[in-house]
Amino acid sequence: MRFERDKTLHFQHCDPAGIIFYPQYFVLFHELMEEWFTAALNTPYGEYIRVQRLGVPAVKIEAEFLTQAFLGDTLRLGLICERLGTSSLTLAVDVHGGDACRARGKITVVQMSLESRRAVAFDSALRVRMERFLHAPI
Amino acid sequence: MRFERDKTLHFQHCDPAGIIFYPQYFVLFHELMEEWFTAALNTPYGEYIRVQRLGVPAVKIEAEFLTQAFLGDTLRLGLICERLGTSSLTLAVDVHGGDACRARGKITVVQMSLESRRAVAFDSALRVRMERFLHAPI
Amino acid sequence: MRFERDKTLHFQHCDPAGIIFYPQYFVLFHELMEEWFTAALNTPYGEYIRVQRLGVPAVKIEAEFLTQAFLGDTLRLGLICERLGTSSLTLAVDVHGGDACRARGKITVVQMSLESRRAVAFDSALRVRMERFLHAPI
Amino acid sequence: MRFERDKTLHFQHCDPAGIIFYPQYFVLFHELMEEWFTAALNTPYGEYIRVQRLGVPAVKIEAEFLTQAFLGDTLRLGLICERLGTSSLTLAVDVHGGDACRARGKITVVQMSLESRRAVAFDSALRVRMERFLHAPI
Repeated sequence: MRFERDKTLHFQHCDPAGIIFYPQYFVLFHELMEEWFTAALNTPYGEYIRVQRLGVPAVKIEAEFLTQAFLGDTLRLGLICERLGTSSLTLAVDVHGGDACRARGKITVVQMSLESRRAVAFDSALRVRMERFLHAPI
Repeated sequence: MRFERDKTLHFQHCDPAGIIFYPQYFVLFHELMEEWFTAALNTPYGEYIRVQRLGVPAVKIEAEFLTQAFLGDTLRLGLICERLGTSSLTLAVDVHGGDACRARGKITVVQMSLESRRAVAFDSALRVRMERFLHAPI
Repeated sequence: MRFERDKTLHFQHCDPAGIIFYPQYFVLFHELMEEWFTAALNTPYGEYIRVQRLGVPAVKIEAEFLTQAFLGDTLRLGLICERLGTSSLTLAVDVHGGDACRARGKITVVQMSLESRRAVAFDSALRVRMERFLHAPI
Repeated sequence: MRFERDKTLHFQHCDPAGIIFYPQYFVLFHELMEEWFTAALNTPYGEYIRVQRLGVPAVKIEAEFLTQAFLGDTLRLGLICERLGTSSLTLAVDVHGGDACRARGKITVVQMSLESRRAVAFDSALRVRMERFLHAPI
């Protein structure tokens, strides 16, 4: 399975060159991950942070920005899981606009307790839901 | 008439106190204005900036933040026109979450040519569409 | 007394019109307030939030943006206290670039416990230091 | 040679988990690159964009976030050139706080005309200045 959302590039995303300022791609990727937690993993992201006191800080990022995206463009962002560890997760995201792939990236996050600041294993219910998004699980 | 959109508070909007960082309210207000241009004024905001080479920088702002809004909250943002001048426009915006008004503000913008950097009168077609959102037009 | 810092407009502050995106002015005002706490009030802002578990969310804002400021401009931001209440504080800030005043604003904040989410009176030592920045104290 | 700047983590950089929100690392990396252009390459970044109408959008990013950095932390950011092509440049950046390396990354940018939207070779004077920051030039 694949999780998708359309997002429009707003003024705040764009730079004096008139195109998306690349750190804003990571803001959009994070927004997509939050929506995935809320809509697809049965784990509303606000409660996850504020009530469960868990978080998923990034530890590793790779991204390529292939063709420029402009103010007002509507982009389709997609997400799959590439690797699911005990407390870590690698997400692969891509961004399409028109027929072109504009950007793609891989983000590895680790589930952390916001209290102890230590890694915490994903519980089994959450893991089962994440596994549905594993690409080509073997 | 009134223009409304629902927006969810994401991680990027919130601060170490767990609530919306107030400059992000203005980012959301701007997003709402862009969507109003695109969806209600028949003026896609990306083209307005990039093709028409016009813009609407803010010259004056007032806002009150009444009750806190938290990560994951879905807020309803509304916009009306309070005053429409030759090249200036005052928008009144409010933000509701649950039953409470969380924030409200007034933003005065001036239409500017991005080439000459001077104020430019709204053309009559755009003005007619804006007038429909004038609150209590007399 | 007046607290001042010079700040250069970076890419992240500027929009497709090539000028500062106005919500970024509020980010700069907040940065100035943090530096004022740390450098002038003997209250390192990071400890204030993280150890003392206090915060100063804004409840009211007014600002005027008078002349445009561009990418690469170095601006001088200044801050004074306009009113000091039991738990509230109104700051007046201004922004100069070259000989011109580019922007000015007033921001009212309330000291809040991040635990109880309630207003908390400024302690007397902090108040004494803030008073030195009161404009025309009577 | 190596280009360094100290930067303090402000409220706008930090998230509800109290640590830097990782897209903000890329904002800081970009700020560092702008300062490098202005202070070390004799190419004030504002003029580079606004007058020369050139830009350096990122095409590829890799980063690792090794240990958490908190609100109020002062971090030392360093930059060297890892590879210098005709119109492309790979920068290696690292972030130290206390004795620990908090983050490191590699960013490949391409010099682009903001008018034609095409890659443009670095001129020889700029290239000579960039070469001084090439790590272990052979």
